[in-house]
Amino acid sequence: MNLTLIKIGGNVIDNPTARQQFLADFAALDGAKILVHGGGKVATQVAEKLGVDTVMIDGRRVTDQAMLDVVTMVYGGLVNKQLVAQLQSLGCNALGLTGADGGIIQARKRTGWAADYGFVGDIEAVNADLLESFLRQNLTPVLAPLTFDPALASVLNTNADTQAQAVAVALASKFAVNLVYCFEKKGVLADPNDDTTAIATLNPDEFEALKAAGVVNKGMIPKLDNAFAALRAGVSQVTICHAADVRQAVVEGTAGTRLTLATH
Amino acid sequence: MNLTLIKIGGNVIDNPTARQQFLADFAALDGAKILVHGGGKVATQVAEKLGVDTVMIDGRRVTDQAMLDVVTMVYGGLVNKQLVAQLQSLGCNALGLTGADGGIIQARKRTGWAADYGFVGDIEAVNADLLESFLRQNLTPVLAPLTFDPALASVLNTNADTQAQAVAVALASKFAVNLVYCFEKKGVLADPNDDTTAIATLNPDEFEALKAAGVVNKGMIPKLDNAFAALRAGVSQVTICHAADVRQAVVEGTAGTRLTLATH
Repeated sequence: MNLTLIKIGGNVIDNPTARQQFLADFAALDGAKILVHGGGKVATQVAEKLGVDTVMIDGRRVTDQAMLDVVTMVYGGLVNKQLVAQLQSLGCNALGLTGADGGIIQARKRTGWAADYGFVGDIEAVNADLLESFLRQNLTPVLAPLTFDPALASVLNTNADTQAQAVAVALASKFAVNLVYCFEKKGVLADPNDDTTAIATLNPDEFEALKAAGVVNKGMIPKLDNAFAALRAGVSQVTICHAADVRQAVVEGTAGTRLTLATH
Repeated sequence: MNLTLIKIGGNVIDNPTARQQFLADFAALDGAKILVHGGGKVATQVAEKLGVDTVMIDGRRVTDQAMLDVVTMVYGGLVNKQLVAQLQSLGCNALGLTGADGGIIQARKRTGWAADYGFVGDIEAVNADLLESFLRQNLTPVLAPLTFDPALASVLNTNADTQAQAVAVALASKFAVNLVYCFEKKGVLADPNDDTTAIATLNPDEFEALKAAGVVNKGMIPKLDNAFAALRAGVSQVTICHAADVRQAVVEGTAGTRLTLATH
């Protein structure tokens, strides 16, 4: 059985028109599917209005108790429920979940790093059986980027890319998973300044060559490292595409970059 | 099969010690169970910090778009996920839900009232099959007081007492439902000023007599009207008790007021 697992980021969530179009395309996809969403700028805006300072260390958000409350409200409440309500009205039987719901994604508060990032979770276990059960009831899980730490009795803030990858890997023994990262570019670009140069397929050797040539930029490298790791862990396919092209990328295979372990 | 459906209000949610004790008692209850929660003062506090005015007409909160965002964040995010995380850590497999998740509680935006209460929903349908399916998977639904309007593609603000009653009635054909309202009093009091005078059982004739004698106060009358309506609609039992007495009221039957349609 096939499963399409799509991660969308803030650029789609923050733009009402792009979001509505993406959700319509997502709702129209056949078969089992899961949506993993990021938070967008809403968390930063709400934090600012609430007088909660946004502190970043090396580009990562520090999550103190006040910020954890904000992301719990915004990711688990506002963004998640708005996406679920929109999908329901588009005929997709969406079910909003954080890692705490059904204990679906257990994590442990990150320790031992040089900096203290606060209430940030590293994923330890995904309840693939429960997710499978939801999918077989024709429900579409919509996952907020929050995991659950049983020892703390609390949700934790977790990177949505990482969460999507962990869920894809956990479900790879049950489904042929196509993990799709939607972002603001048309895929992995041969020329980073030309959005028409998306590479159709990419294997690890080609990735190494692009890195050596300086073509893939700093932000793409961990994304692609994670994507190849997902393939090695049993995920059938990883696709990187623009959110506006999700239908072409997933159904028609005519957009985005498809990662593969195969040598040509 | 028995089902215990408990509604807790703001007085439990706002007090960390009372909340932890209640959740430990709730987690320890055997069998199928559902928790419906109110919002507490957090929504008003968050609204104030965000500069969203709280407007009340005749004691009811007016929900404009800004306030809808606040209650979606606070009820569906912060309060719901904190309760779910605490219950999970107590060994109860909680699943947080709004009416939008799985389309579980459909409503229609209230119109035709003298005042415009904004994004407030009147419940039209409860998906009892999906709730039953969750319960049979040993999941414990934790319902935020938000319903779902398909026509608006939005959640709506809904009174938690009303939501608890509607869910209890919808599940009455599948389970023997004990609907339990936990609040800050020990039950229906024979002397409103003496918390030791909770009436053990109350039928409609006795309720009428208490009303005629002026013993039940203004706030209790609609609560009891709704409770008797639930019994007439097939709910097996309605119990009104203090949150701290939930175990005695539900398991031992030695606390709170049990409503009945039986004449003595």
